[in-house]
Amino acid sequence: MRVLVIGANGKVGKHIVSKLHKSEHEPVAMVRDPDQVPQFEEMGISSVLGNLEKDFESAFYKIDAVIFAAGSGPDTGADKTILIDQEGAIKSVERAKHFGVHRFVMLSSMAADRPEAGPSGLKHYLYAKHRADEFLKQSGLNYTIVRPGGLTDEPGTGLVKLQEHMNKFGEIPREDVADSIVHLLSVPKAEFKSYDLISGDQSINELLL
Amino acid sequence: MRVLVIGANGKVGKHIVSKLHKSEHEPVAMVRDPDQVPQFEEMGISSVLGNLEKDFESAFYKIDAVIFAAGSGPDTGADKTILIDQEGAIKSVERAKHFGVHRFVMLSSMAADRPEAGPSGLKHYLYAKHRADEFLKQSGLNYTIVRPGGLTDEPGTGLVKLQEHMNKFGEIPREDVADSIVHLLSVPKAEFKSYDLISGDQSINELLL
Repeated sequence: MRVLVIGANGKVGKHIVSKLHKSEHEPVAMVRDPDQVPQFEEMGISSVLGNLEKDFESAFYKIDAVIFAAGSGPDTGADKTILIDQEGAIKSVERAKHFGVHRFVMLSSMAADRPEAGPSGLKHYLYAKHRADEFLKQSGLNYTIVRPGGLTDEPGTGLVKLQEHMNKFGEIPREDVADSIVHLLSVPKAEFKSYDLISGDQSINELLL
Repeated sequence: MRVLVIGANGKVGKHIVSKLHKSEHEPVAMVRDPDQVPQFEEMGISSVLGNLEKDFESAFYKIDAVIFAAGSGPDTGADKTILIDQEGAIKSVERAKHFGVHRFVMLSSMAADRPEAGPSGLKHYLYAKHRADEFLKQSGLNYTIVRPGGLTDEPGTGLVKLQEHMNKFGEIPREDVADSIVHLLSVPKAEFKSYDLISGDQSINELLL
């Protein structure tokens, strides 16, 4: 599949693009800034310019699947949480549907399915992610929602714990999140499902097989 | 009807409560802070404590209609825009549905139906209002959404312009917004409809009759 990675320049996004490039799929890295293009071109990876706050329709040309991994990050205000994490995701779902994309995998966040239980400083973020996830679920698109625990920059271990609902919080390296997302992209049992994801002892390559 | 006014202590909310009190309806003023109760009690108006970020289920006891007029205001961050303007409204719709409320009038904002066209500093706010309005429209509740232009503190004139979609922006006194909302609450033609609202030359008392 030709897979559009939205938020390809992000910390998880870069891992996703690189994992896809080594898989049977073909990544198309969507980035906002022309300066972000060469790093992908040098690896022989296609890229496309698109701004979630403006226009990014042309990014969907000949795309079979979408992975949404964009986020406004911790250095911007909550206005960007609405505009990127919530509305950018919702617009991506709308465009994917419009252009007949077959598959949509959303990088969400642990507790986005129960934001009221989140820590007070994170609640607004969790609600924004929640609204985007709900929009995807009701879109009719073939979706998988992945809600990882606390993200770390540790190297991937290839071992995780994936479960529809988890009672305990945990951490997970960004690389393992990316690996899990790329794996789940073509796993039939993951279709129309949502999962919590932390480090564990299940081999990513065998998840839901 | 017994009408729960959510955001009763706000600038528009106070006008709404007062107009309802003079109408055939009975207002129930929902406020967050016990200090906000006496002003209503002194006028013989019922009030109830409820916090949109926490619990306010008990406010819906024996309520026939809800007017949502709460807003986080300009002095708080965009995190509160998510938690109050968007999620507070969405929770109010959910609770109203759960408790079998017959009618829901939403105080929205001009351009909330096309946030992408709004000024950049306001976009996140308009998207938050947009999501709440969309949630109400899809809830199955008997709704009216009112999207006023720029709010002023001028005294009401009793004259407005109400239209499903308006091409030009305008202003309107908060008192006229309150008056229009109370009027539309029991006008059958306003059911399941959304309107822009600015100052004009239509008499509020005759709107959609």
